[in-house]
Amino acid sequence: MQLLDGKKYSDELVSEYKKIVSDLDILLSIIQVGNNISSDIYIRNKIKYCESVGVKVNLYHIDNGDEKSLKELINNLNNDSKVTGIILQSPIPGIDFNKMVELIDSSKDVDGLTKNNIYNLYINNETIIPCTVKGIIKLLEHYKISLKGANVCIIGRSNIVGKPLALALENRDATVTLCHSKTKDLHLYTKNADIVISAVGIPKLITGDYVKNGVICVDVGINRINNSLCGDFDYESVKDKALFITPVPGGVGPMTVSMIVDNLIAMKKNSYI
Amino acid sequence: MQLLDGKKYSDELVSEYKKIVSDLDILLSIIQVGNNISSDIYIRNKIKYCESVGVKVNLYHIDNGDEKSLKELINNLNNDSKVTGIILQSPIPGIDFNKMVELIDSSKDVDGLTKNNIYNLYINNETIIPCTVKGIIKLLEHYKISLKGANVCIIGRSNIVGKPLALALENRDATVTLCHSKTKDLHLYTKNADIVISAVGIPKLITGDYVKNGVICVDVGINRINNSLCGDFDYESVKDKALFITPVPGGVGPMTVSMIVDNLIAMKKNSYI
Repeated sequence: MQLLDGKKYSDELVSEYKKIVSDLDILLSIIQVGNNISSDIYIRNKIKYCESVGVKVNLYHIDNGDEKSLKELINNLNNDSKVTGIILQSPIPGIDFNKMVELIDSSKDVDGLTKNNIYNLYINNETIIPCTVKGIIKLLEHYKISLKGANVCIIGRSNIVGKPLALALENRDATVTLCHSKTKDLHLYTKNADIVISAVGIPKLITGDYVKNGVICVDVGINRINNSLCGDFDYESVKDKALFITPVPGGVGPMTVSMIVDNLIAMKKNSYI
Repeated sequence: MQLLDGKKYSDELVSEYKKIVSDLDILLSIIQVGNNISSDIYIRNKIKYCESVGVKVNLYHIDNGDEKSLKELINNLNNDSKVTGIILQSPIPGIDFNKMVELIDSSKDVDGLTKNNIYNLYINNETIIPCTVKGIIKLLEHYKISLKGANVCIIGRSNIVGKPLALALENRDATVTLCHSKTKDLHLYTKNADIVISAVGIPKLITGDYVKNGVICVDVGINRINNSLCGDFDYESVKDKALFITPVPGGVGPMTVSMIVDNLIAMKKNSYI
């Protein structure tokens, strides 16, 4: 078993990004609505990584439920030519997330969640794709794992991970099954898959019994049990069957953060993967 | 084995639609680019069905490759308040189909292919969905076939059928695998599926060996062999294993045409499924 070491690769990317960013003038705006301890941690990690490669970051705070101020802020950032990209940190309690995301200028939509960017992904003319999706693809590519013709089982059908990931992997000629809470016979799909990707947030949902020998496991879940983190895979029982597996933490998470910079560079240069 | 008789159901819908349409003033504009014998037949069927329920139809012809005239026409139809819906009949040789579709006002987009309508499908806030997709769903519903938790294998990943169908079935809690030309082990997916839907246009691709007993087969393929029509399923070898199967012709085809009227009514009333 080999680790898909997202932390290591993400750290390696720093020097590459540093060189590119130094020639560009990149400013990221992050908007946080209300107070959420998880959001605090995610935002702190994003700022830290961005600043380590020379991307400037402005963080804005909006009160819970203050839709009016949020709209005004997004509008101002859209119109500010100094702003390269905008992240609206989820969740935004009391306000419709999709509706607010849609107000972001799609050319500044670092998270790749606006209608334009999703549609471009759908028609296989990718522009900015969601950071977690891009992070998983880059990580698999880094370890020379081929997607073409691969049987992939994705668990979780969120608009942010599961669905765009399915589209992106189909664009790369994988055969994708999208599983979710209403799936019966989940093990039939996971057992048959060359690559199993879980993004549901259920600790240790996927045990060794659910996968075949030589499987590649990508764990998007970050779950807290008794003050320690674990993923959606039962690492101990899966690791002996897996050819590759992402650790939690240190797998997909750091890649997601790196891809913010990757997307910002693509946006600034107007050249996409 | 029971037929999923799309022709019969489509005919039954006529009287229902007639009543609804008589209170509304619905005008459909169909645009044909160049000459294509298949398009002639499809358009003739669409006009015939629409007129049978009281929907008025205007047919417009544009020369092959004349993008300028096509753009002008779409623009005029968008701005014409008498026009309820617009169909751009595919193929449009020499012109980018997606680009032209995107010019259609999404509130007049009968085929449900514009960015807005696809995005609404993606976020599970469906508005106008593609006619073939809606036709398949209505046909399955008519025969009381439940989608919730069903294992569905779709073969074919086109932007018009395979991909929107996958999204629509996931919205209805099916577990969907989207297969295509690069899929290895196709039979593994078809064998495991409660419902197999093929939309690739390869005659008799799916034989009895590929499906399990009690399978439900939905055939979107229309292939011509020696002057007779056949689908993507090898009907003779599949029929004894299938619980339900759509005939070709007379299955999905007529449902697709009926759903043009269904979508036009929804658009006119501004109320969606």
